[in-house]
Amino acid sequence: MLSKQQSKNIIALQQKKVRRNEELFLVEGEKTVEDLLLSDWSIRMICITDSISHNLKELISRNYSGELIEVSSEEMDRISPQTAPQGVLAIVHQKESRFDISEFKDQLVIVLDDIQDPGNLGTIIRIADWFGIRHIVCSMKTAECYNPKVVQASMGSLFRTTIHYMDLAELFQLNVETINLPVYGTLMKGENLFTTELKGNAFLIMGNESTGISESVQSFISSPLNIPSFAVGSEKGPDSLNVAIATGIVCAEFRRRVFR
Amino acid sequence: MLSKQQSKNIIALQQKKVRRNEELFLVEGEKTVEDLLLSDWSIRMICITDSISHNLKELISRNYSGELIEVSSEEMDRISPQTAPQGVLAIVHQKESRFDISEFKDQLVIVLDDIQDPGNLGTIIRIADWFGIRHIVCSMKTAECYNPKVVQASMGSLFRTTIHYMDLAELFQLNVETINLPVYGTLMKGENLFTTELKGNAFLIMGNESTGISESVQSFISSPLNIPSFAVGSEKGPDSLNVAIATGIVCAEFRRRVFR
Repeated sequence: MLSKQQSKNIIALQQKKVRRNEELFLVEGEKTVEDLLLSDWSIRMICITDSISHNLKELISRNYSGELIEVSSEEMDRISPQTAPQGVLAIVHQKESRFDISEFKDQLVIVLDDIQDPGNLGTIIRIADWFGIRHIVCSMKTAECYNPKVVQASMGSLFRTTIHYMDLAELFQLNVETINLPVYGTLMKGENLFTTELKGNAFLIMGNESTGISESVQSFISSPLNIPSFAVGSEKGPDSLNVAIATGIVCAEFRRRVFR
Repeated sequence: MLSKQQSKNIIALQQKKVRRNEELFLVEGEKTVEDLLLSDWSIRMICITDSISHNLKELISRNYSGELIEVSSEEMDRISPQTAPQGVLAIVHQKESRFDISEFKDQLVIVLDDIQDPGNLGTIIRIADWFGIRHIVCSMKTAECYNPKVVQASMGSLFRTTIHYMDLAELFQLNVETINLPVYGTLMKGENLFTTELKGNAFLIMGNESTGISESVQSFISSPLNIPSFAVGSEKGPDSLNVAIATGIVCAEFRRRVFR
């Protein structure tokens, strides 16, 4: 059972300001907590109900020696931001990402220019993980990666990916001065993704859901890319694809090239 | 201004049962209503506030001669299922999709086996539209395409795509007896998507968010496909990609082949 103060502290972590001050965040769901326990992220506390699986119980007892609190399902309903909470909630220490641009020189790095929807950010983190992309650099206005909706959509991939927040102009200025990787970005007027030469070590910029890549960031793109539309007939198709879908398609194409 | 009864009827359309009985559904947002007005879907009524753009007003007066009601922003807040309603809401007649399997014979057709998340269904409709896929066949347990969240995520693509609901065993039985298209589906143990020969006229099955393609439907797959993971190091990557992301990647690969 949790004390009143403990419950209050956990519920407060649903607010971004509190997460930032406390440098903590919430992780829920059996699958995601499993991935957390197998990672090197540091856990402050785990709350469980008696509904969790035997497997997860085993994993906790093997991989975790910190504070473990059994709560009732009513308590879980109260402290969880989910509408249908699962039987486990962990309070986890945020991780400071060490930024060293020289680590990017043999990497494909995703750069996000003001992605606002937490679901999109979480899904993009999962895509990165699938395609072996280790680093994501986010503009300062991109959604916060510790938002519970990001954590949920990333399905544990958050714990296997390094996420940096920084000014993108600074990033690309530094790129020019040091490793000088090519910079790809998706633009309406870009070259056909499927027929353009793609370098595997590069930055790939994806832009905001409504406004795309901002003009100041566009100026750093060395190869603009476009996913061609196949909309049929006289009707025009959609104006764009959802940004997470576009990220999936572009990352798949970068990785596919190894099979040629 | 709306009468009390009119408001009540509109609000009731947030319920699936009422939508089914009335054969009506709600469409919101300037962009989506624009696409609606340019389509052949039949509109029962449009409600607007004075905040809508000049462009949309023009388009309505050019393309629509039915009932048009000006409402206050307070009224719009009351009748809209959105938390931040835009200035336009249309009540639209559902369309019965005429199913004739012979129309599929020179098509790539997406088949959805129990997709449950309305956001995923809407996003898949948008992907289909982008890649010139005209038909989507949904299992009876797939989310309802007139759910407001589906309509919103499809971003107008719903009005350019034909969506059928039917028993998938029946569909594939009929396929065998008539047009006999190859049946692709994404499975863990499938062949590498990027190196498998793909026929452009085919069925492509995508499965449920947690359980994938059901066993009974799997038996109809002639070519199982898999999107290879590039997860690095000793760590295992994610178990899967989000189903809408996977649909985007597979559809892109089918269409890409024309550029070879």
